[in-house]
Amino acid sequence: MSLKGACIFGQSGGPTSVINASAYGVFSEALKNPNITRVLGAANGIKGVLNDNLYDIGQEDAFELELLKNTPSSALGSCRYKLKDPSVDDTDYKRILEIFKKYDVRYFFYNGGNDSMDTCNKVSKYLLSQGYECRVIGIPKTIDNDLFGTDHCPGFGSAAKYIATTCAEIYRDATVYDTGAITVIEAMGRNAGWLTAASALAEVSGCGPDLIYLPELPFDLDAFVVRVKKVYEEKGNCVVAISEGIKDKDGVFIAEYANKDAKADAFGHKQMGGSAAYLANCVKDATGAKVRAIEYSLMQRCAAHCASKTDVDEAVLMGAEGVRAAVAGMTDKMVAISREEGVDGYKAKVEMLPLTVVANTEKKFPLEWITEDGAGIKKDFFDYALPLIAGENPYTWEQGLPRFANLKKIKAE
Amino acid sequence: MSLKGACIFGQSGGPTSVINASAYGVFSEALKNPNITRVLGAANGIKGVLNDNLYDIGQEDAFELELLKNTPSSALGSCRYKLKDPSVDDTDYKRILEIFKKYDVRYFFYNGGNDSMDTCNKVSKYLLSQGYECRVIGIPKTIDNDLFGTDHCPGFGSAAKYIATTCAEIYRDATVYDTGAITVIEAMGRNAGWLTAASALAEVSGCGPDLIYLPELPFDLDAFVVRVKKVYEEKGNCVVAISEGIKDKDGVFIAEYANKDAKADAFGHKQMGGSAAYLANCVKDATGAKVRAIEYSLMQRCAAHCASKTDVDEAVLMGAEGVRAAVAGMTDKMVAISREEGVDGYKAKVEMLPLTVVANTEKKFPLEWITEDGAGIKKDFFDYALPLIAGENPYTWEQGLPRFANLKKIKAE
Repeated sequence: MSLKGACIFGQSGGPTSVINASAYGVFSEALKNPNITRVLGAANGIKGVLNDNLYDIGQEDAFELELLKNTPSSALGSCRYKLKDPSVDDTDYKRILEIFKKYDVRYFFYNGGNDSMDTCNKVSKYLLSQGYECRVIGIPKTIDNDLFGTDHCPGFGSAAKYIATTCAEIYRDATVYDTGAITVIEAMGRNAGWLTAASALAEVSGCGPDLIYLPELPFDLDAFVVRVKKVYEEKGNCVVAISEGIKDKDGVFIAEYANKDAKADAFGHKQMGGSAAYLANCVKDATGAKVRAIEYSLMQRCAAHCASKTDVDEAVLMGAEGVRAAVAGMTDKMVAISREEGVDGYKAKVEMLPLTVVANTEKKFPLEWITEDGAGIKKDFFDYALPLIAGENPYTWEQGLPRFANLKKIKAE
Repeated sequence: MSLKGACIFGQSGGPTSVINASAYGVFSEALKNPNITRVLGAANGIKGVLNDNLYDIGQEDAFELELLKNTPSSALGSCRYKLKDPSVDDTDYKRILEIFKKYDVRYFFYNGGNDSMDTCNKVSKYLLSQGYECRVIGIPKTIDNDLFGTDHCPGFGSAAKYIATTCAEIYRDATVYDTGAITVIEAMGRNAGWLTAASALAEVSGCGPDLIYLPELPFDLDAFVVRVKKVYEEKGNCVVAISEGIKDKDGVFIAEYANKDAKADAFGHKQMGGSAAYLANCVKDATGAKVRAIEYSLMQRCAAHCASKTDVDEAVLMGAEGVRAAVAGMTDKMVAISREEGVDGYKAKVEMLPLTVVANTEKKFPLEWITEDGAGIKKDFFDYALPLIAGENPYTWEQGLPRFANLKKIKAE
């Protein structure tokens, strides 16, 4: 089972606040493992492999690597590059094999969401078909929490903490005048409502949104306006949380009403956003109220200063466990997390799942956790999510500002 | 000089992260001062006085009052009510005097920005004209930092820390792909560029914006597009910070290009916002790049989880000093802050300025602190602002979420 060789680690897809915590987990474990002869980081994910643009992580300072635990966004750079089906065009795969042979790469760790697990799976299958021994492990990350098979995903807890904290703070601000206002706040989540649902956690601070709309249920604009108007008239204020991905009964994104000419990316996803502004205008026309649209925008995935300690710790753990599992002989797996049953409180347990099970399956927000009126979140979600936002990650400040990891990024020869 | 009686404290204008820290300063000092017989809080600023809607602060728990130091937005509610000129209509003033007599109010502390200092000044002058002895003190707050006479204003340091920290985090996220992007980030500041300039401090984290546009200089759209395009072509990415208040050479707000039908408030101010989205679209057309517009929106004035310790401490101090000054005999003054000269590093000193000097005068960002090309900030501003964002205010978290002050708000009989 023992396999000696170099490893490559790459980061892919949209960044999170804790994606580099997983990088730290991989690097710290790989650097001390005798079976791993060299630790390489791919610049901009799989593109760094294709372009032979690899960094020699062994030459980085330990102190700077440690700072990865509070450095948001992918430190090695990211990509949204989609590998073709190898049966149609295997050019990229041949190139990957060539690079792996060049550096004697026997371990490949890829950190990303749904699309990246698919990439991982394709690379793994191709290498196997060529008889090249290499252990391939996917390390999950996504603020969207929509990865199948894992109880939750590194990145979600910190995004949820940022959203819930910010929602509580916004609620206090938006309801401060006696003249009233309607505030519509938009969270990310194209198809899954986990992040928007996290707004509900602000209720713990006494400042939960009045209404919450997830993409899991069809969105009825007329009913929405009536509902908001009613809350506004009763309370004098109304704070609404919506998902960027809300769609009408015909499956048309509300964002598309506003962004008709937005272009799709390589995976066919359109850049979302703008639903809150659109809806704020609709309720303004209907109520005459002062309205404001707010987007958490990139902040929800990069506000590392508000990261969850639980999330950071788990992200590190899952990186390290990925390395240990690979060295122990596993391949074609994703590191997943589950909850230990029968223990007091929350305790996470790491599991290894087949990549084939995980890739390209989306985990939606459970419909049974949405209140009957379709605009609220039940206690089950609080039980699920509160442990994930628990604790505040120690942040390194210098001169009142974040001190990020400063990697040398020395190109591997 | 000794004057015994009740005090009223009110909060006015847009909230800040630390406005309640000043409330804490006033309350804690007033509650222990033997000359102050009763401490009252006005619901929604001066409107609480007019409506006889006052809270008895003496009945609040000390623990909850202490939590005001990390509770954003005006805990007593705010207002944007403009008092008329008493020579035209003195109805409100007569009512204020009636209420002051009813509760034997001899101290009035009003916490706000430019408009509130004007309110303070008018009330003070009217009471004097009626021979009613009452000491009136303005306590400044504004994230905009545009109050005349004070070196800086409570609220600015925390907003600046949030903006600089978030700008650094966004920069890391927005530049993570090798495919490039242009990001336009909008900060508040109708006429003064202090908040937008704070983005520049992200340079300390190695992540300052490439270009910065303040409202102090006329904004040329064509030159802007050329400039952004150039940076994007050279670096592969471009992050731009703009003020909501940027105007063209004819004084037309860029926001008005997008928000033609926005209505003005009682002070004649229009709700701004939308400039970033407008400019992002302009550069998208010119470059074909992926663009994103981000607004710090309400978060810049309510993100108490990212407050500056220096700012919170000064906000508390200025509230307490206002009370001490009034008891010592001062009236018609605003608490201001200056820097001690000839000391090592930064040391703040409290001063009392005549309200007449302060009211309705805006302090703009110094033109000599803007780089010659009009799109950058000089080191002088770093020397000025870094001490103001220094330190992280200890935040009280419960279950991973902010624990805000929970006031009983018992109505004064």
